[in-house]
Amino acid sequence: MNRSMIFSMIGQVCVVIGALMLLPLGVSIYFHERCALAFLITMLISIGIGMTLQLIFKKGDQVIYAKEGFIIVALSWIILSAIGALPFVISHEIPNFIDAFFETVSGFTTTGSSILRNVERLSKGLLFWRSFTHWIGGMGVIVFMMAIVPSQNDRNMHVMRAEVPGPTVGKLVPRLRDTARILYLLYIALSIVEMVFLLAGGMPLFDSLCHMFGTAGTGGFGIKADSITSYSPYLQWVITIFMLLFGVNFNIYYLIVRGQLGAAIKSTELRCYLGIWLAATVLIVFNLVNRLHLPLEMAVRQAAFQTSSIMTTTGYGTTDFNLWPQLSKTILFFLMFIGACAGSTGGGLKVSRVMMLASDIKRELRHLLHPRSVQIVKFEGKRVDNQTLRSVNAYFTLYIVLMLVMVMLLAFDDSDFETDVTAVVACFNNIGPGFGAVGPASNFADYSGFSKLVLSAAMLLGRLEIYPILIALTPSTWVKMPSVSWQMNTLKKRRNPSGDDFETRNLSFFQKVKLEISKRKNRKTLDGK
Amino acid sequence: MNRSMIFSMIGQVCVVIGALMLLPLGVSIYFHERCALAFLITMLISIGIGMTLQLIFKKGDQVIYAKEGFIIVALSWIILSAIGALPFVISHEIPNFIDAFFETVSGFTTTGSSILRNVERLSKGLLFWRSFTHWIGGMGVIVFMMAIVPSQNDRNMHVMRAEVPGPTVGKLVPRLRDTARILYLLYIALSIVEMVFLLAGGMPLFDSLCHMFGTAGTGGFGIKADSITSYSPYLQWVITIFMLLFGVNFNIYYLIVRGQLGAAIKSTELRCYLGIWLAATVLIVFNLVNRLHLPLEMAVRQAAFQTSSIMTTTGYGTTDFNLWPQLSKTILFFLMFIGACAGSTGGGLKVSRVMMLASDIKRELRHLLHPRSVQIVKFEGKRVDNQTLRSVNAYFTLYIVLMLVMVMLLAFDDSDFETDVTAVVACFNNIGPGFGAVGPASNFADYSGFSKLVLSAAMLLGRLEIYPILIALTPSTWVKMPSVSWQMNTLKKRRNPSGDDFETRNLSFFQKVKLEISKRKNRKTLDGK
Repeated sequence: MNRSMIFSMIGQVCVVIGALMLLPLGVSIYFHERCALAFLITMLISIGIGMTLQLIFKKGDQVIYAKEGFIIVALSWIILSAIGALPFVISHEIPNFIDAFFETVSGFTTTGSSILRNVERLSKGLLFWRSFTHWIGGMGVIVFMMAIVPSQNDRNMHVMRAEVPGPTVGKLVPRLRDTARILYLLYIALSIVEMVFLLAGGMPLFDSLCHMFGTAGTGGFGIKADSITSYSPYLQWVITIFMLLFGVNFNIYYLIVRGQLGAAIKSTELRCYLGIWLAATVLIVFNLVNRLHLPLEMAVRQAAFQTSSIMTTTGYGTTDFNLWPQLSKTILFFLMFIGACAGSTGGGLKVSRVMMLASDIKRELRHLLHPRSVQIVKFEGKRVDNQTLRSVNAYFTLYIVLMLVMVMLLAFDDSDFETDVTAVVACFNNIGPGFGAVGPASNFADYSGFSKLVLSAAMLLGRLEIYPILIALTPSTWVKMPSVSWQMNTLKKRRNPSGDDFETRNLSFFQKVKLEISKRKNRKTLDGK
Repeated sequence: MNRSMIFSMIGQVCVVIGALMLLPLGVSIYFHERCALAFLITMLISIGIGMTLQLIFKKGDQVIYAKEGFIIVALSWIILSAIGALPFVISHEIPNFIDAFFETVSGFTTTGSSILRNVERLSKGLLFWRSFTHWIGGMGVIVFMMAIVPSQNDRNMHVMRAEVPGPTVGKLVPRLRDTARILYLLYIALSIVEMVFLLAGGMPLFDSLCHMFGTAGTGGFGIKADSITSYSPYLQWVITIFMLLFGVNFNIYYLIVRGQLGAAIKSTELRCYLGIWLAATVLIVFNLVNRLHLPLEMAVRQAAFQTSSIMTTTGYGTTDFNLWPQLSKTILFFLMFIGACAGSTGGGLKVSRVMMLASDIKRELRHLLHPRSVQIVKFEGKRVDNQTLRSVNAYFTLYIVLMLVMVMLLAFDDSDFETDVTAVVACFNNIGPGFGAVGPASNFADYSGFSKLVLSAAMLLGRLEIYPILIALTPSTWVKMPSVSWQMNTLKKRRNPSGDDFETRNLSFFQKVKLEISKRKNRKTLDGK
């Protein structure tokens, strides 16, 4: 494993995050707040660590593989959250480190779950930082680094693949750095458009900035205790629409910018995403009008806002949906799993994965009825290869199993079932509020430190789509052994392309030496591509 | 589709079930109960319908395919439950048909969820019938029919595959009828052994019979309001152990009977099943001793009983585990999903499926790290082919999705979240009690008629492992079209073995005629095997 490359890149991340803290520093100086000092100290620590790591691990092989990509992303995000938590702790506004860590993980992973009982008591600088972490985390800090740091080469595809959500990650343009730049330019442009609409509706500049960050990253940290409730209906509609827009695959916007509107509209994922959103909204409107006897305009506005907020995994609220009838709550619960489009800033399973799983089920049904026929799964008009389907299925299984395990871990706290289940679902899918004691009108403060760490892990697993964290936590990743067994496997495949088992244990000493020689000889050729 | 064969076999099922009602009839006559008349009327109706169906659909093609197998099983189980519900309705002991239908589905699917507020008010004949449905449903009524009706041929593998649980179904011996007989002989033998142990512990004959039926089928209908609580510790241990034994794959017993004890012990599924059970029991014992300060003997007995009961999906209780600490409840919730071994009478996902899913995740992780190596999934020492893995994954996805949909449908009732979720999980996995308002001390009576039908569907979907019910409910199954498209597909494959898409729409009229002729010519050869 290329340790020097891993730690050198993590060093870069630390420097970048230190530099980004200039913005909240500026805000807190502008408002004459004491937390400016906390930002200054954190910046020094962060840049200091970053420089040191880069100095120590400067010289080294630039070549990295999938494993290194996963580890870089996983460690970066954990270190990022630990550093991002420091201003809260140093300023004593969130004195407990675990609480501050939870809050920062929730920020970077664009979850929006909070441990703050009263968010309005936080200073402006920290409020800004909290919301700004959403914006950074939405598109990904490493994608950002790639867009600005010139020395990166295209090998970093492994890193990007580990950070960008969705079942398959493709480059928009041949050069990876240009892809990262295009993504960030689109992201910034759409963010500015939202700002304009918010300011036009009379929202103060500071509020507009924070809410834009929260919407763009599909995060959901508010700056008021009642989230978006007290803003005007116009502003609520603006946020509804921009939440939906940021839940769309950014490839669609790239197509539109390039003038291929026709191709963009044909996207089945986009259609499915909007279709599910519309269906859920209509159902909830009926339920609210029927049961709670809300006026129609209000029912439509509340339903549309809440479905956008949950489906794009943002988590803003204009009402306490914990008090909605059970049917509406269950529809929201359903939307929590589906999530937004792949390649957007939203979380959840992603619409494309859900669609592939549905196609796979259809294929299995057809296969059962007609065992001798060949069944093909298509997505966006193209055939989906078996490896992708297998990955999507394995992802879904892991996703469900990990959530069940986390519900079990939370049970040590003796909370109730609804709270535990929806807390895990809301954190894992990066949504924010759940039902019960973690509903929109409450917070995560009552959980124990252990449970907060479990939920932090859930948020990271959800945002990075499980594998990076899982691989970084596997002990065998850090021990030499598996690397050898992998080369054995690679050789197995070369020697025995049928894929049948091939026992290296049964080889004679002479054969083993021959294998070792051919291994070394083939190393470059095999790994070169 | 071979409709005559489908309805002729359903007719046979009706006759068999009518004949089996002789037993509860005998019991009710012995106890001089009025419900004897209800059984007599139902027998006449059932045998009448059966005879009529067989007369109408007598002459016909004996050849059936996978689709017919699924439909026969699905329809048989639905009709079986409707007929089985009649004695309750006719005797006015459960006057509402939907309630009686729910109770009977719960019986045949070996779920054990009840709508009765006080089971002790039921007459002995109906109590016997209720428990007897567990015993019939456990091994499967169609497997039973195959064991006794001589005219069946080996084509019925399709039917057996649809009824016997587990990811793969194999024949124990070359002839299908002998396999069915061996399974039933083992089932009867193990049932008799349990009866002996229960009688030896001083349990009355009638109680022993009913509890044996409930244990053997892993059903869980009790005959007392407090289930097994009031019986002696010895009897509780006997039931604990026999629940576990009936959750084991019956192939293991066949191996033992044939003297291959070594091979039986080596089964990884068996080891994993017992390992999970032991781990769960130990954890719960610690939790109970710690939190509820129960004496150790009592904690061990209660924990072992409840884990056996839930994991084998039986559903008997010796305590109200709804009052247990959250951790123990969550462990039980976890066990609800895993379920018993494949090829046992238990429900749930099955241990072998869980193991395959776990191996598949491991493979996916290895694949991510080493994309060029070949990864093999093994189960019981043999390589699992990709089609089986794909099926297991698709099954898991469908399983989760269907449960979510059902939770949503139950939400129309405005019950609470914990009750709805665990009601669906308990019914789908054929367990019986859930938590909250459907806990071991309560029942399903408060749900609306619609919700009861939804839960009945959940029980049938769970027992028959989804596909038969799903295929029988798909409209395209009953329309001619798909059959043609299937034959097209078969031809596609023959003409184009690479599996690429082959557009029949673009064929000229002449080509279509040629295709039709070759289709008819190849029909026998293709379908013959």
